[in-house]
Amino acid sequence: MGENMASRSVATGRARGDPANSESAQQLVQAAIDLMRERDTLDVSFVDIAERAGHPQGLIGYYFGNKQGLLVAALERSIARALAQLESLLAADYDPVEKMRMHLNGIAEAYYRFPFFNRLLQAMVRDGSPEYAARLTQRLIQPMMDAQAAIIDAGVAQGVFRPVDKKLFYFATVGAADGLNAARFILGGALGQEIDAESSKRNAAAIIDFFLAGLMSRD
Amino acid sequence: MGENMASRSVATGRARGDPANSESAQQLVQAAIDLMRERDTLDVSFVDIAERAGHPQGLIGYYFGNKQGLLVAALERSIARALAQLESLLAADYDPVEKMRMHLNGIAEAYYRFPFFNRLLQAMVRDGSPEYAARLTQRLIQPMMDAQAAIIDAGVAQGVFRPVDKKLFYFATVGAADGLNAARFILGGALGQEIDAESSKRNAAAIIDFFLAGLMSRD
Repeated sequence: MGENMASRSVATGRARGDPANSESAQQLVQAAIDLMRERDTLDVSFVDIAERAGHPQGLIGYYFGNKQGLLVAALERSIARALAQLESLLAADYDPVEKMRMHLNGIAEAYYRFPFFNRLLQAMVRDGSPEYAARLTQRLIQPMMDAQAAIIDAGVAQGVFRPVDKKLFYFATVGAADGLNAARFILGGALGQEIDAESSKRNAAAIIDFFLAGLMSRD
Repeated sequence: MGENMASRSVATGRARGDPANSESAQQLVQAAIDLMRERDTLDVSFVDIAERAGHPQGLIGYYFGNKQGLLVAALERSIARALAQLESLLAADYDPVEKMRMHLNGIAEAYYRFPFFNRLLQAMVRDGSPEYAARLTQRLIQPMMDAQAAIIDAGVAQGVFRPVDKKLFYFATVGAADGLNAARFILGGALGQEIDAESSKRNAAAIIDFFLAGLMSRD
């Protein structure tokens, strides 16, 4: 039943179908992603998701067990590209400064494309059982934290980075990269500035600039 | 009717009482703050707020018109101390580096005490009319942005800071300072680290350290 499929691994429901091999299931995941992004809310209903995907509501239960299962699949699809990029980045022959630059750029880009990601993950960890929260963290956060830590360690070993509290650095970079997205209704409405691909790129460059400066060795 | 009272200024409801002069009204605001903080959610009901404050539900409508009115009062109370500190900070005779240090510390401290603040403000701006969103931004964000911009300008003029995109810097610092709080269920549950006053202080120190390094002139 596809136990090793990414889109099933942390779901808890009583799903009967295998979403990884179903185009309809993937369309439901995409509809959930699109609706959360467009409306800037985690509060999307089965009715709306099914209607957007053009499938009957019952398919959600069939493939994902429950809403939590569908949302986990949405989180996993959102982060899949960033994680794949990160793996090839770590394996590549760049120096730590260049790796950190590309890593921070990847985070900022992912949050621009999936502005609901952080909030959804935080809400699911908050509302889930301790075991469930641990599995989500293990699968969706730990790989990013480990990769960033490896880049920092390499830089410290080479003397280009100074030692920092890696956990605090991680949550600061993630929060900062997401700051502009989280504020996009404030910026769009009252400050007269839409967050588009262009301003998102400038934000990524600023995040890289600020944090690399904070990380560089000072002698 | 207290038009100039902070807790009325951006409320839209048909409130009939003056909350600024009522201890019961202030207890309702505090109950809303306490519940949002404890449960890490914006979704608190009139029933729960009234019960926590020990007052009948009808008092909320009487003093705040509607839920929006009560939540705006909660935002304004949450930020009042930080804004007052900021005013005296700007007037004080510190150099820009020291002012930025204290300003960033104030942001980090406020988010630790009011972890719901950013999310609530963002949701209210998102869901309100354009005029309402503009008033909220004007009242609750613009003073912070202006103060930070003034500190940066002073530092640039003295040659200790380099010029940065001030809007991007603002949302990056705010996002970074809030990053640890936003992740506190992840940290508490899966990474085995509670966010307490002690770790919040270390977070504030790290934020100051990272961003000041990013801001300092490089010659």
